[in-house]
Amino acid sequence: MIIQKTENSRISAFDPNNFSFGNTFIDHMIICEYDNGKWGDVKLVPYGPLMFTPAMMGVNYGQACFEGMKAYKDKDGQVFLFRPEKNFERINKSAKRLAMPQVTEEMFLDGLKALVDIDRDWIPQGEGMSLYIRPLIFATEEALKARVSNKYMFAIVATPAKSYYTEPVSVKISDHYSRAANGGVGFAKAAGNYAASFYPTQLAIEEGYEQIIWTDDATHEYFEESGTMNVFVRINDTIYTPPTSEKILDGVTRDSFIQLAKKRGIEVKIEPIKVKDVIEAQKNGSLKEVWGVGTAVVTTVFQALGYNGEKLQLPRLSEEESYAESLKRDLVNIQSNLSEDPFGWRVQVDHVLETA
Amino acid sequence: MIIQKTENSRISAFDPNNFSFGNTFIDHMIICEYDNGKWGDVKLVPYGPLMFTPAMMGVNYGQACFEGMKAYKDKDGQVFLFRPEKNFERINKSAKRLAMPQVTEEMFLDGLKALVDIDRDWIPQGEGMSLYIRPLIFATEEALKARVSNKYMFAIVATPAKSYYTEPVSVKISDHYSRAANGGVGFAKAAGNYAASFYPTQLAIEEGYEQIIWTDDATHEYFEESGTMNVFVRINDTIYTPPTSEKILDGVTRDSFIQLAKKRGIEVKIEPIKVKDVIEAQKNGSLKEVWGVGTAVVTTVFQALGYNGEKLQLPRLSEEESYAESLKRDLVNIQSNLSEDPFGWRVQVDHVLETA
Ligand SMILES: Cc1ncc(COP(=O)(O)O)c(C=O)c1O
Ligand SMILES: Cc1ncc(COP(=O)(O)O)c(C=O)c1O
Repeated sequence: MIIQKTENSRISAFDPNNFSFGNTFIDHMIICEYDNGKWGDVKLVPYGPLMFTPAMMGVNYGQACFEGMKAYKDKDGQVFLFRPEKNFERINKSAKRLAMPQVTEEMFLDGLKALVDIDRDWIPQGEGMSLYIRPLIFATEEALKARVSNKYMFAIVATPAKSYYTEPVSVKISDHYSRAANGGVGFAKAAGNYAASFYPTQLAIEEGYEQIIWTDDATHEYFEESGTMNVFVRINDTIYTPPTSEKILDGVTRDSFIQLAKKRGIEVKIEPIKVKDVIEAQKNGSLKEVWGVGTAVVTTVFQALGYNGEKLQLPRLSEEESYAESLKRDLVNIQSNLSEDPFGWRVQVDHVLETA
Repeated sequence: MIIQKTENSRISAFDPNNFSFGNTFIDHMIICEYDNGKWGDVKLVPYGPLMFTPAMMGVNYGQACFEGMKAYKDKDGQVFLFRPEKNFERINKSAKRLAMPQVTEEMFLDGLKALVDIDRDWIPQGEGMSLYIRPLIFATEEALKARVSNKYMFAIVATPAKSYYTEPVSVKISDHYSRAANGGVGFAKAAGNYAASFYPTQLAIEEGYEQIIWTDDATHEYFEESGTMNVFVRINDTIYTPPTSEKILDGVTRDSFIQLAKKRGIEVKIEPIKVKDVIEAQKNGSLKEVWGVGTAVVTTVFQALGYNGEKLQLPRLSEEESYAESLKRDLVNIQSNLSEDPFGWRVQVDHVLETA
């Protein structure tokens, strides 16, 4: 790895108690370029602009995929990644489906550790605080031909992230729009999937909802995901989540929730969830909770489901009664080193590169 | 419009008889930036790189759409665009579906004319030669949040294009992969649609085909498009093409073929095409032609259809017998001012900006 430290650190201007998530960037980034059939050197460099023309294939043909993950700082200042190997595997699944070159462990995992290590001072400390990390691969060849690019960039950029406390939201069960086709790219963290979801989400917001529960595009009879999260439903004391498929992203949080629920002795059923069954359960009172899970906010609890023009209310459970909240607490405690880690999910980031 | 002519024209190094399509760029480009809820000045500037970091939303969330169109030079050196208002309408349909700001006529049509005018010397002359033009809009805000961008760039770049002569190809009728979901973005020229199509196309190539005929994602029983073209089928002396829908791009060439066919007195049926019916027609000998249409090569004729592991051969018609070839000739003659233009499709590009 080639390391080029910044000579103009911006850290002294960074206030961990008052910053804007998403557009405050840490001092460095990782970049690595692909050309002539192979990846070049991994470089840790100052965060900043590169040169691209509007003919860059990444923005013309959407060959681009990404990951979203976090680093957490415990009360002693130790820094941890959470199951980074899952994101490494997933970015390569995404890359394969988009006909892009896969990245190596050295690029992804070592790059991640070096970046988090050198910029560890940027990681805010405290309940729910973290560093949000964005590895991505995108096509960089400049060519106006609808074909696979010959040049790519792998990059890792990062932004400090605040507490993930969120209010319960109302979600609309989609009856027209969809995010994934059979034989499509729904399981990949493909850039284009996100752009496609914005307009339907705006329409749902105009109807008084905050998010969408995506359903299958052919019949809208089955739950798929919720916003950019995987979805869980609790009926009586059993929790349900759809099996992953070519239409559903294999979320790290989803997988962690399933394991944590089993550990708590909660019955988990991984099976298709019928909209009809959820609505019926709401009507007969057996529907206890519906929530989404993902790295960004861990859990978003739903307070109402929009279906057929009706806004169906969900019960308000206390933190103790709620499986969503209990499992979130279990997960957050592991992530931030407040509890044992029986699954071996935490990966400590050693001090190697001192910013001195 | 702000005009900044290049001081380093590359035209003297351009050989119209020997250039690489797609990565030979003309001297200038149009750019226009969107910020604070509005578009800024339209600028005609030297083609070249701009500065973007890897946090650019266009490559992270795929908010990007484009157009593909051509300028043609006739034997007297006059330059024409072809139905540019159709591309203008379509880029705005794409932009709307991707929750991006729409562009104005001034940006799109005047930008197009100014660019083609100033770089008219780059347009190669002769049978099938043209300038391929790429208008595009992409998100430029630097932020790691999966939401609509606040900043965009509209750009027009262009590359000289060669003769569109193409050999007949074999196409696989898709039985697993798909390019569009119901309630998705198939009708939009969304960047992500193209990336999603590369891997299935690679697999089809490994099986001995050149392209894919996309079918509906739920049942694979209906034709949708072919590669990045709209598809036509001729059974006996009737031609069929699927109606445009939210899954099918409303192609300018498709629309032109329909009008040209009607003018020739050919029966055209715009209705869903069942895979089963096409296969049956191939077996009983009534299937005469299947072809794709699009701006890039006008027509690609198919010589065989891959279905259920079988490669079904299509008849080889002479140029006179072939509707695909006859309609292509009609269209090309109008585009390059070799015939009358009864539809008013040509738009001449006046001399306004002299490169002098
Ligand atoms: C579409 C989609 N589904 C689900 C998730 C949740 O995945 P993870 O738990 O790995 O963050 C994400 C990403 O956050 C996503 O983008
Ligand atoms: C998916 C797709 N279908 C069809 C077409 C044909 O459209 P047009 O005739 O406007 O070029 C294109 C673009 O060339 C396309 O990208």
